[in-house]
Amino acid sequence: MPKYLSTSDADFDAQFDALLTSKREDSPDVDDAVAGIIADVRARGDDAVIELTRRFDRLTLTPDTLAFTEDEIEAQCAQVPPAERAALDLAAERIRDYHRRQLPEDAEWKDDAGATLGWRWGPVSAAGLYVPGGTASYPSSVLMNAIPAKVAGVERLVITAPTPGGAVNPLVLYAARLAGVDTVYRIGGAQAIAALAYGTSTIAPVDKITGPGNAYVAAAKRRVFGRVGIDMIAGPSEILVIADADNDPDWIALDLLSQAEHDESAQSILITTSPEMGAAVAESVNRLLDGLERREIAAASWRDNGAIIEVGNLGEAAALADQIAPEHLELCVANPDVLAANIQHAGAMFLGKWTPEAIGDYVGGPNHVLPTARSARFSSGLSALDFMKRTTMARMTPGALSAVGPAAETLAASEGLGAHGASVRARLDRLNE
Amino acid sequence: MPKYLSTSDADFDAQFDALLTSKREDSPDVDDAVAGIIADVRARGDDAVIELTRRFDRLTLTPDTLAFTEDEIEAQCAQVPPAERAALDLAAERIRDYHRRQLPEDAEWKDDAGATLGWRWGPVSAAGLYVPGGTASYPSSVLMNAIPAKVAGVERLVITAPTPGGAVNPLVLYAARLAGVDTVYRIGGAQAIAALAYGTSTIAPVDKITGPGNAYVAAAKRRVFGRVGIDMIAGPSEILVIADADNDPDWIALDLLSQAEHDESAQSILITTSPEMGAAVAESVNRLLDGLERREIAAASWRDNGAIIEVGNLGEAAALADQIAPEHLELCVANPDVLAANIQHAGAMFLGKWTPEAIGDYVGGPNHVLPTARSARFSSGLSALDFMKRTTMARMTPGALSAVGPAAETLAASEGLGAHGASVRARLDRLNE
Repeated sequence: MPKYLSTSDADFDAQFDALLTSKREDSPDVDDAVAGIIADVRARGDDAVIELTRRFDRLTLTPDTLAFTEDEIEAQCAQVPPAERAALDLAAERIRDYHRRQLPEDAEWKDDAGATLGWRWGPVSAAGLYVPGGTASYPSSVLMNAIPAKVAGVERLVITAPTPGGAVNPLVLYAARLAGVDTVYRIGGAQAIAALAYGTSTIAPVDKITGPGNAYVAAAKRRVFGRVGIDMIAGPSEILVIADADNDPDWIALDLLSQAEHDESAQSILITTSPEMGAAVAESVNRLLDGLERREIAAASWRDNGAIIEVGNLGEAAALADQIAPEHLELCVANPDVLAANIQHAGAMFLGKWTPEAIGDYVGGPNHVLPTARSARFSSGLSALDFMKRTTMARMTPGALSAVGPAAETLAASEGLGAHGASVRARLDRLNE
Repeated sequence: MPKYLSTSDADFDAQFDALLTSKREDSPDVDDAVAGIIADVRARGDDAVIELTRRFDRLTLTPDTLAFTEDEIEAQCAQVPPAERAALDLAAERIRDYHRRQLPEDAEWKDDAGATLGWRWGPVSAAGLYVPGGTASYPSSVLMNAIPAKVAGVERLVITAPTPGGAVNPLVLYAARLAGVDTVYRIGGAQAIAALAYGTSTIAPVDKITGPGNAYVAAAKRRVFGRVGIDMIAGPSEILVIADADNDPDWIALDLLSQAEHDESAQSILITTSPEMGAAVAESVNRLLDGLERREIAAASWRDNGAIIEVGNLGEAAALADQIAPEHLELCVANPDVLAANIQHAGAMFLGKWTPEAIGDYVGGPNHVLPTARSARFSSGLSALDFMKRTTMARMTPGALSAVGPAAETLAASEGLGAHGASVRARLDRLNE
C-alpha cells in the first residue's frame, strides 16, 4: 500500500519528513571495484577493456571490433520498422527545435573606465554518451543526450553501449545515426567510462561524459569527474502529480504508473485537494496495474514508495512540492500557470491535464534527463549548455588600468601577493614616465 | 630552471606532452579520513563540528559561538583601513556589474503543433561558500563567490571560514558584509562541508557549496556532490602568456610570477614567437624574483613547473594554447582579438599588454574562480548561473496531443513501457469519443 498522508494529520510534518528522507535505493558500495577497473584501463588500455567486456558482457571483441562499422549500423537501422522510424524522426526534430533555443549569446561591452569586457561560449570538442544495455537501452535517451551535444556544436560525439552476449537494439543505433553520433562502441560498465575519460589506443578520450548507468557507471563517473566533465549522477525516477477534483482518476493513475513502471525504486506521489480524487486514483491504480506488462515492478514501486497526500488548498501543495523538488511535476489543476508560478523547485513541469509526463519522455521537446533525488533544488535538466563552456574576456586600456589598477594593487598588498601588485605597478609607472 | 621547448625541436611533441601531463600536485589520499568526518557530523551534528574544530583549529566553540555575531563583524570591519575598504568597494561594484549581465532569460513559445513550451530560471534557495583560513584567506575570493550568488537571487548565503587559533582576517568579514552574506561560521575543513551539506542543529543545510579549499575540503565536496551542488574541484593555479617580440620582458615576467607566487604547484608558461623575448623574460624573472616577499614559493613554482616555449608563429601558439586549456590566458600580441578568435579553450582571456592577469583577480569584473588542470576544455569560471537552475515547461492542448501523442505511444511500446503509452492513449481516446 502506498502511504496516505494529510496535512490535517497531527503528525503530518514527521510523516512527510520520513517520506522525503526515505532511502529508496540501496546503492551497493562498488567504489573499490570501480577504482580497480579504472586503474586497469589506464594501465592496459584496449586489452583491459576487451578482457572486462569478455568477463562482464560475455562478448569477445578485438580492437577492430570495439566499434560498430558503418555497414553494421546500416544493417541494424534497416530493421527499424517505419512507424518507429517516423516516431524517432519526429522526436528528434522536436528535441532539436527546443534545444536550439537554449544556445547562449556571447557578450562584449565597454565599461565606464574604458575596459572592454565580455564572454564567449563554445562547445566542448568531444563528448561521450553512455547508453545502458539490456532493458534500459532506450533510443529516446540517445536522442536526449546526443541532440543537445550536436546542437551545442560538439565536433566528435561517441556512444558506449554494452551489448551483453552481443544483443543489440536496432532503435538505439538508428537514434544514434539520426542524432549525428560519430562512433558507437559496444562496451559498457566502469571500463567504458574509464576508456572515455582516459582514452585507449582505439578509443580517443573525450571532454564530457553524460548518460545514465548502473551503480558501477555512476561510481566511475564520480571518480573521473574533474578529469572530464560529467552530467549529474542520476537516481531513480520520480513524479509528483498535483490534482484538483476535476480530473479523470484513470489519467492520473496512468501518469503515476508511468514512473512506477521504470524501476522498483521509482517514486510516484499524488498531492490532491480532493479526498475523493485521492481515493479514486488509488482505486484506478490498483485496477490498471493488472493490465501492465511491467506490473510487478510498478506494483512494488507504488507499494513501497508511492504516496497520496491530501492538502487543504493549492498553496499547501506548492509548499510541499518545493520540499520534494520533484524530477517531474504534473499540474492537473484548473489554472496550472498560477500554480507553476508558486513553485520554485522542479526539473520539468507539465501543465494541465492534457500534458501527461510521458509526452516529455519522448516528443515534447524538453529534455528527459532531469535532476532526481531533490537535486532540482540546485541543478537542471540536460541542455545544450552542458556541452558548452564560457571563456571570460577582458581588455584594459592605459586609461582603464589607471582607473582600476591602484585598487588591484591595494588588494594584492593586503593579500600578501607582491608580484600581483608589481605587475600592475610596472604598467602604471610607464604611464607616469 | 624552467623547461625550454621549441616547436622546432625534433622531440617537441614528446616534451610538450610531458609538460601537459606532469603531475604538479601530490594530493594526499584523505578520502577515508573525510568519510569518517562526514559520518561523524551527520551522526552528532554540532557536537562533532565543535570537537573537530577544537582538534584541528585549536579553537573551542559552543553552538552559540559557531557563528560570528553582528557586533563581532562590526568590530572587525571597523579595523579595515579606508584604502582597503575603497578597493573592496570598487571591486564589488565591478564584479556585480559584470555578473548581472549573466542573468539568463526565461522563454516561452507556442510551436506548430499548438504546444506551449519554454523554461524558467530561478536561484537556489541557500548557498554556502568555503573560505580557507590562514594565508589563503582572500577577501577577493569572498567577493568572487558571494556576489554571483546574490546576483542570482540566493536568499540565504553563508560562509564557513576556519579561524585557526582564533585568527580572523578583518577584510574577509568586510567583504562578506559587503557582498550580502548572512552568516559567517568560524569552522573549516571537511567538517564545515559536511555541516553545510547535511546541516546541524545550529547550521541549516544549503543547496550549493562553492569555494576553494585544501585536500580535505576537496574530498569532502566530491563526497557530498549529489546531496548538494558543488562548483569545480579546484587545482593549483596556472597562467599561459603568449607574447610577441614587442613587449616589456619585465611586465611578462611579473605576470608569470603572479601565478608562481600563489603556490609551489602553480604553473606559469610563456609561449613566444621571439627567442630574444623568451631569453629576456627568463632573465627578468630571475632578477625580479629577488624582490618578492614570496620569492621562495615563486622560485620553486617557476623552477619545477615553469616553461618557455618558442613557436614559429601565432598559429602554432594558438594550437598549443588549446591543448593546455589554461585557467588564465594573456595575449600580449599586437592583435589580441585575432589571436583570441583562434583559441577555443581557456578559462579567462586577458587581451593586450595593458591587461595583466592580476586585474582579473581583483577588479576586472569577470570571476577569478576559473577551471584549472585543463578543465577549461569542458567547464567555465564561476558565474551567476552556478547559483541558478532551470525548470523546463510544457503544456499540451488536445490538438497538440493529437499531433504528437501517437509517436510517443509508438516509442513507449518499443521501449516496453506500457503505462507510458496508456497515459497518452487514455487522453487520445477521449478526443475520439
